[in-house]
Amino acid sequence: MELGEHISQRYNQELEDIRSKVLKMGGLVEAQAENGVKALLQRDAELAENVATADDKINALEVEIDEDCVQVIALRQPTASDLRLVFAVGKVITDLERLGDEAAKIGKYSKKLAKKKTITGMHAELSHLSELALSLLHDSLDAFARLDDERAVQLLAKNDKINREFNALSRILITHMMENPRNIKNALRISWCARSLERIGRYSINICEHVVYLVKGKDIRHTDLDEVLAELFPDDDL
Amino acid sequence: MELGEHISQRYNQELEDIRSKVLKMGGLVEAQAENGVKALLQRDAELAENVATADDKINALEVEIDEDCVQVIALRQPTASDLRLVFAVGKVITDLERLGDEAAKIGKYSKKLAKKKTITGMHAELSHLSELALSLLHDSLDAFARLDDERAVQLLAKNDKINREFNALSRILITHMMENPRNIKNALRISWCARSLERIGRYSINICEHVVYLVKGKDIRHTDLDEVLAELFPDDDL
Repeated sequence: MELGEHISQRYNQELEDIRSKVLKMGGLVEAQAENGVKALLQRDAELAENVATADDKINALEVEIDEDCVQVIALRQPTASDLRLVFAVGKVITDLERLGDEAAKIGKYSKKLAKKKTITGMHAELSHLSELALSLLHDSLDAFARLDDERAVQLLAKNDKINREFNALSRILITHMMENPRNIKNALRISWCARSLERIGRYSINICEHVVYLVKGKDIRHTDLDEVLAELFPDDDL
Repeated sequence: MELGEHISQRYNQELEDIRSKVLKMGGLVEAQAENGVKALLQRDAELAENVATADDKINALEVEIDEDCVQVIALRQPTASDLRLVFAVGKVITDLERLGDEAAKIGKYSKKLAKKKTITGMHAELSHLSELALSLLHDSLDAFARLDDERAVQLLAKNDKINREFNALSRILITHMMENPRNIKNALRISWCARSLERIGRYSINICEHVVYLVKGKDIRHTDLDEVLAELFPDDDL
């Protein structure tokens, strides 16, 4: 990570500490999401219960990092580029906390689903959507860790794939509900897990947007992807 | 709003401008949410279409205010209390943007619902949940505008009421789906609107938490409400 050259060694260390804490928080969130998915797909009620109740550490880190950011700005009066880093961190941890919430929700519904008769024929679709969401989360955190804005921009396009998969799954679920009205509650639980997976994708995209802001100083939220590509990488054939 | 005394008149003006923009953004979000609810309850497809597509201004304001915050920190090196204001603003506008998204979703589903046969017996419940969510949003924005932390803390408790109402509505919807499997799609659309209303409540609560952070300098996210009350207002019989 390019933190620039600071006169104060301690200041460098403070920025590095903040970065380490964000990566640690990202690691916890990723583990939570992976466990949530595992509990869902393997119908593991015990693991599901753990995931549903284990976001304390993630939440505590959010509060701690926010405080660190305020402190470093107050004491060090960062230059524009460091300030962007600190601001981007503030946004990233909000998304990480919400990612943790979505993982916890998957845990909560998986716990109930684990005890019920399975809905046949959903496993492949759920497993595919989970894979897409988890890999996007992983790659987004990786792009943040490396401050790799090119990678971050490439990832933006992956949200469409997740949305298509989510819509396909939703259609199957609706058909299932119509044909098995007595099993609607479980179908709804599955659809809420799918919705959480879709949001995991959405929040991962947010993280990519923060990475681009951080590196390029350009706010690309609410911007058309093609415009972003053309402007940031005018010579690329992305 | 207590902005403190600054040597530079222009600096005061910059903070005041940021605050005005946040209030303007809040006003737009509130109007969007109200129109979304109106479109849903009155089955107004045209209004629904407007709400579903009209969050450009809200999104543009988010980007603009973020940039203003970075600028004011870079140029003015705010003291701790102003810095808290700027940081809280950064968090509030993230929630406002997501509130706008939820309003747009209500618009999107209401548009489809307006053209379908109505689901009887849901109107009263939806209207009650809408009222709770809209009034919490209004009061939270008001608490932010006045920097009224006592009011903000009082509002925290209202989320429970919204959750109870949301759960009651969900149970009715599930029963309806079981009895009318051919109408499941519309019941799902209503349940997604209800979910968005529930999230409007949740994001409004976030704003209240930011107000408390801003005024008291205490981060109360992820904290038990009773603890918060006891610590912030030790002599009160809230």
